[in-house]
Amino acid sequence: MIIKQKKIVVIGGGTGTFVVLSGLKKYFEDLVAIVSMADSGGSNRIIRDEFGLLPTSDIRQCFVALASGNNETEKIMRNLFIYRFCKGSGALNGMTFGNLFMAALADILGSQYEAIKKTGKVLRITGRVIPVTLTKVNLVAEYEDGRIIRGEHEIDEPSSETRKKIIKLWLEPAAYATPEAIREIKKADLIILAPGDLYTSLLANLIVGGIAAALRKAKGKILYILNLMTKAGQTAGFKASDHLKEIIKYLGRKPDMVIINNKKIPAFVEKYYWRKEKSVRVEDDLEKNPEIKVIRADVLSDKIYKKPASDILERSLIRHDSFKLAKLIHSFFS
Amino acid sequence: MIIKQKKIVVIGGGTGTFVVLSGLKKYFEDLVAIVSMADSGGSNRIIRDEFGLLPTSDIRQCFVALASGNNETEKIMRNLFIYRFCKGSGALNGMTFGNLFMAALADILGSQYEAIKKTGKVLRITGRVIPVTLTKVNLVAEYEDGRIIRGEHEIDEPSSETRKKIIKLWLEPAAYATPEAIREIKKADLIILAPGDLYTSLLANLIVGGIAAALRKAKGKILYILNLMTKAGQTAGFKASDHLKEIIKYLGRKPDMVIINNKKIPAFVEKYYWRKEKSVRVEDDLEKNPEIKVIRADVLSDKIYKKPASDILERSLIRHDSFKLAKLIHSFFS
Repeated sequence: MIIKQKKIVVIGGGTGTFVVLSGLKKYFEDLVAIVSMADSGGSNRIIRDEFGLLPTSDIRQCFVALASGNNETEKIMRNLFIYRFCKGSGALNGMTFGNLFMAALADILGSQYEAIKKTGKVLRITGRVIPVTLTKVNLVAEYEDGRIIRGEHEIDEPSSETRKKIIKLWLEPAAYATPEAIREIKKADLIILAPGDLYTSLLANLIVGGIAAALRKAKGKILYILNLMTKAGQTAGFKASDHLKEIIKYLGRKPDMVIINNKKIPAFVEKYYWRKEKSVRVEDDLEKNPEIKVIRADVLSDKIYKKPASDILERSLIRHDSFKLAKLIHSFFS
Repeated sequence: MIIKQKKIVVIGGGTGTFVVLSGLKKYFEDLVAIVSMADSGGSNRIIRDEFGLLPTSDIRQCFVALASGNNETEKIMRNLFIYRFCKGSGALNGMTFGNLFMAALADILGSQYEAIKKTGKVLRITGRVIPVTLTKVNLVAEYEDGRIIRGEHEIDEPSSETRKKIIKLWLEPAAYATPEAIREIKKADLIILAPGDLYTSLLANLIVGGIAAALRKAKGKILYILNLMTKAGQTAGFKASDHLKEIIKYLGRKPDMVIINNKKIPAFVEKYYWRKEKSVRVEDDLEKNPEIKVIRADVLSDKIYKKPASDILERSLIRHDSFKLAKLIHSFFS
């Protein structure tokens, strides 16, 4: 049963947001993805540096999640948007088709914002995808040892050295929210803070001028979906309450609800994460937050993911399950 | 008035074929373009050498000519297919979006032939575009001084040295026609040999195994549209009868009809062509060919074309007029 009259805004970027949107579109029609624009790794580096455009990898993933894929043409377009070139020299090798599509269209239309809107139409997506800001920004993190790192990719995938905790996150230059993003947050019946890299995907949205303020005034409930695993360089050693503390710090209010997975993660997966980057399952220590409704449920995908050979970025091995998440959200929000 | 019941097959490649198809699609629905696959310049070099695929620039131009462009999505797709990247390093810079689209789709579908078919569906083209062969070939020309040149691009755009006449043209390895191309020639009511580079676009089709034989047995009339200007390195000094002689040599029969432009080419254009490459207007010396119906008409475009800055290949400055040509063909064939 598709619900037309409720507006859901999902804030994030990356695979976690992809997973949330892919499931929700089966139940909700008025879906809005507000997407971080601070990405600087992989394909985005070329889009930023060689094309002088805003990075579009996160937007591209949302488009794929929301693409109709109903008829043959729409299926082809969706498959092309997933495709990554693994041949060709220079800027072409490793580039995603979707990013090239949007870059070409931005040049034709003379506006990347218009290009993003039109791309949504070509893919006949459910809902809309809105860049959180149209300012070309760099994400900057200050660590507790005083070190300052610039660039989303450098923060997201540190080299071998162990990093301290991030104590401050900001954008350079200061960026203001796309007016459409603010309008959608105001009208939303439910706002979902998607799982994913806490600083480089989720909080990178909340530090855009106007977003946190709009969320504080929002009439809709705010639901935060907690990550499954901690992440080296960003949330090492973080329990559920530590995640929440950071959210509250940048949001300036508590979320109304939190979803945390309670399905056991297979032991071999836990071992893999530990060996690879000392990551562990995010521990549920949320007993002491009575103001927040904590929803404990099996929202874990039974599938184990591998990164495709042509993809130069690290991807998560386990993910939330799109359908379990969407079904759960639909059960209390319809 | 769109004519549905007559099948027209256009054989060629390049801008001349683009011009013919663009006009014909206003009058005829059952249009088939059979396109040379020997291209090796520009974007094609990368498609051939770095992707290991058949060159698709000529196919791409036919798709643009025949694309519907009716609704917003189709307009966007058509504009993207015209687009050439002028940013990005390596294989990306100078690459056309259309060629990348087909290369990605070929990888996804595991078949370039299927990718070409599906591309036609996505663009909702009128008619069909068929690669003349699916063999990866090199065009080879032997000149009257005994020199042999390999590669379409090297034959098409010789460096400054003056070339002798081409006395023999063949493909390496020997290539056989796509069965669909043969079937369409058999069923055609009219077959048009499109204007364009005589050896590198038009005759490059006729030397594919099976094509000339099918044309000799065809029930439809064969119409040859003569070029406007001679071309350095290919048809220097050629009058209309010299063009025709070469066509007959490779075709093994006379065409039934010839269209030759009789509108005066502006003097400054003639001067430009002479200065640039000693090209002159193709002289009409066809009085002595009573077996061939010679149609003399104004089929010259009033527009003077310039090559786009991002395009590394030479394009013609004057062209046939799509609508004049199509109207003329429609007047005696409907």
